[in-house]
Formats: sequence, C-alpha cells, structure tokens
Amino acid sequence: MKVLIVGASGTIGKLIVKELSPRHAIIEAGKHKGQYQVDITNEDSVRQLFTQVGKVDAIIAVAGNVHWGSLQEMSADQFKIGLNEKLMGQVNLTLIGQHFLNDGGSITLTSGSLSDDPHVGGASFTTVNASIDGFIRGAAVELDHDRRINSVSPNVLQESWDVYGGGVPGTEPVPGEKVALAYRKSVEGHQTGQTYRVW
Amino acid sequence: MKVLIVGASGTIGKLIVKELSPRHAIIEAGKHKGQYQVDITNEDSVRQLFTQVGKVDAIIAVAGNVHWGSLQEMSADQFKIGLNEKLMGQVNLTLIGQHFLNDGGSITLTSGSLSDDPHVGGASFTTVNASIDGFIRGAAVELDHDRRINSVSPNVLQESWDVYGGGVPGTEPVPGEKVALAYRKSVEGHQTGQTYRVW
Repeated sequence: MKVLIVGASGTIGKLIVKELSPRHAIIEAGKHKGQYQVDITNEDSVRQLFTQVGKVDAIIAVAGNVHWGSLQEMSADQFKIGLNEKLMGQVNLTLIGQHFLNDGGSITLTSGSLSDDPHVGGASFTTVNASIDGFIRGAAVELDHDRRINSVSPNVLQESWDVYGGGVPGTEPVPGEKVALAYRKSVEGHQTGQTYRVW
Repeated sequence: MKVLIVGASGTIGKLIVKELSPRHAIIEAGKHKGQYQVDITNEDSVRQLFTQVGKVDAIIAVAGNVHWGSLQEMSADQFKIGLNEKLMGQVNLTLIGQHFLNDGGSITLTSGSLSDDPHVGGASFTTVNASIDGFIRGAAVELDHDRRINSVSPNVLQESWDVYGGGVPGTEPVPGEKVALAYRKSVEGHQTGQTYRVW
C-alpha cells in the first residue's frame, strides 16, 4: 500500500515508519522534515501536499501541538492552540485527504489517553483528544467505498517518559513498538470508527 | 442558590428555568433575550456578563451553534463553527466563570448524544459534543474549593423532534422534563466530572 505519514519524523512517527516500511511504500511528510513539508493548520498547504503526493491507500496523522497548563490561568487563546493544531490539523487532513484516498483506504489519527485519564494541567489535551476520538466516530459513518477512519490513543511512550511522564503520575508508560502496532492494525485491518487505546 | 443560565430562552433553557426556579434565584442570559445579553464566543462579552452578575453558585450553559452537513462537502470553516460557538463558547464561560463561582458551586455544560451515536451529517456535532464531555472531565480535576463541573448530554427532545428528529433516525426522543432533571442533578448534587446522558 501507498501510505502517507504526516509527522513521520517524530518519536511515534519514526516507529510507525519502522513498523510499516517492510510491507508498504511510505511517504514521509512533516512540518519541517520528510519528503514533503506541510502545515496541517493551513488548508492550502494540505491541498498542495495531496496534489503532489496523489492518491494514497492510507493516511496517518501523528502531529499537532496542544497547550499544557493550569486551568485557573488558561486563556482562550492558549486553549485554542490544540483545537487549531492537533484537532483541526487532523480534521483538515481528513476533509481534504478523503478525496485522495483510494477505495478501501484508511485514515488513522492520533488522540491520547488524557481523553479519559485527566491530569492537572491537561484540560486542553483531554478536550482535544476526546474530540479526535469523537471525530473518527462521526466520520466513520460517512466515508463510503469501504474507506475507513480510526484513531490511536497512546499514553506517554517509554521513549518520552523523561520529558512528559511528570504530567501523568501513576500511569504506566507504553512501549513505542506497541503504539506503532496500533497504527498497523488500523492500516492493515478492516475496522472503522475505532479508537485503539494503548494504555 | 444563585444560578446563571446562559441560553435560558431556548427549548431546553426554559425547561431548566421551570425545574430550578421554585428553589433557586435564576439569572437568565442569552444572545438576544433574557436579563443579560452575552456573546459567549467573545471573551470580553463573557467577562462583562460576570462583572455585571457578580458571584454565583451555579453556571449553566445551553447554547452554541454547530454545522450539520455532509462530511464529503464540509469545509474547515463550516467545521470550525461548532468549535468556536458551542465548544469555545462554553469553555469561555468556564475559564472566566470559574473566577466568579462561589466555593462548592457548579458549572454545567451541554453536549449531546451524537458524541457516541453518530449519524450522517453530524460529524461536527459528534466531535464537538465529545470535546465538551472531555473538557468537563479535564476541568473537574483542576477546580478547587469543592467547585464542580459536569455536562448534560441529551438526545433530541420530544419538543424538538419535528425539527431535528430527521437527522437521528431510529433514536428515541427524550422528554424535555427529563433533560431538565439532569441539570438539577448537576446543580444540586455533589458529583463532578460526570456526563449525564439523557438518551
């Protein structure tokens, strides 16, 4: 399959490339790295990406920032960062990418365990991750021609625990390889509207 | 208790007023109607509302538009309507309202059954409603001084079935009185981080 990975150079992205590349033709995209550069918050940039890449069998998105910080001090602008970047970035890839997705193809987005396991400082993450899991449920009933959409919801990876683990005390970091397997299930399987929780 | 209801003149809002007014001092607010006018998408307007109203024991939000339409044809701008109005409107009321909420007070937001029961045309609703249920889970672990936050997630009301029922075929409309009871549970109860599903 021809698989487009947006965010391919990140910690999770690299592991997905490793997991999928033995069996698929991978196209790597990213904000600054990879074969193609794309700003997923910009519809024109996303449209340009797909015009260059052409039709694909799978779209994987693992990109987008979210603001971490106290609810008491959070501003609307800080709250909107995650909506504009992680949510709308992945929604843009879906709304535009659906028209470049072959029959039977799949879209796999990335949410995260904070959706259901809230921690202090993470209110925007909880909101955004829940919205992405919601979006794939909503989109799944509308995609036709056997095209599918799922999300992968990881906890903090073992590989990133030193950086992010402090925010989710008492949770168990997950091996990156296990997270990458969830993307493989979405791409190579036949399920749709599912959130693969890796926590 | 002093209870601020934003969206008090709508179908659900009126039923909440009816349910709560025998026991509480109700302040009605709305975009165009009620004692106070507020544009919940505008932080300054929300701040002005609370400056005028002062401290309250409960904030109820039942307001905000969302775009209904085919995923195939949906634009990012259409998708953002619900994020800017229903989600950020209620988030603005929470981020600003938390500083005007008495100890032990509550915030009750409104999501909807499409979060978990997707229908064709409703991808943006599914996303926005799931995001609101996520937001209250995230915010609940951050509010202190016994302050609480919940969401009420209704299906289409019997009272609105003729208008909206066509979009959710095969579901059972709910009596408006039952929906109003869920807001009462949030205001008068002691739970937090809960989504009261009325479907």
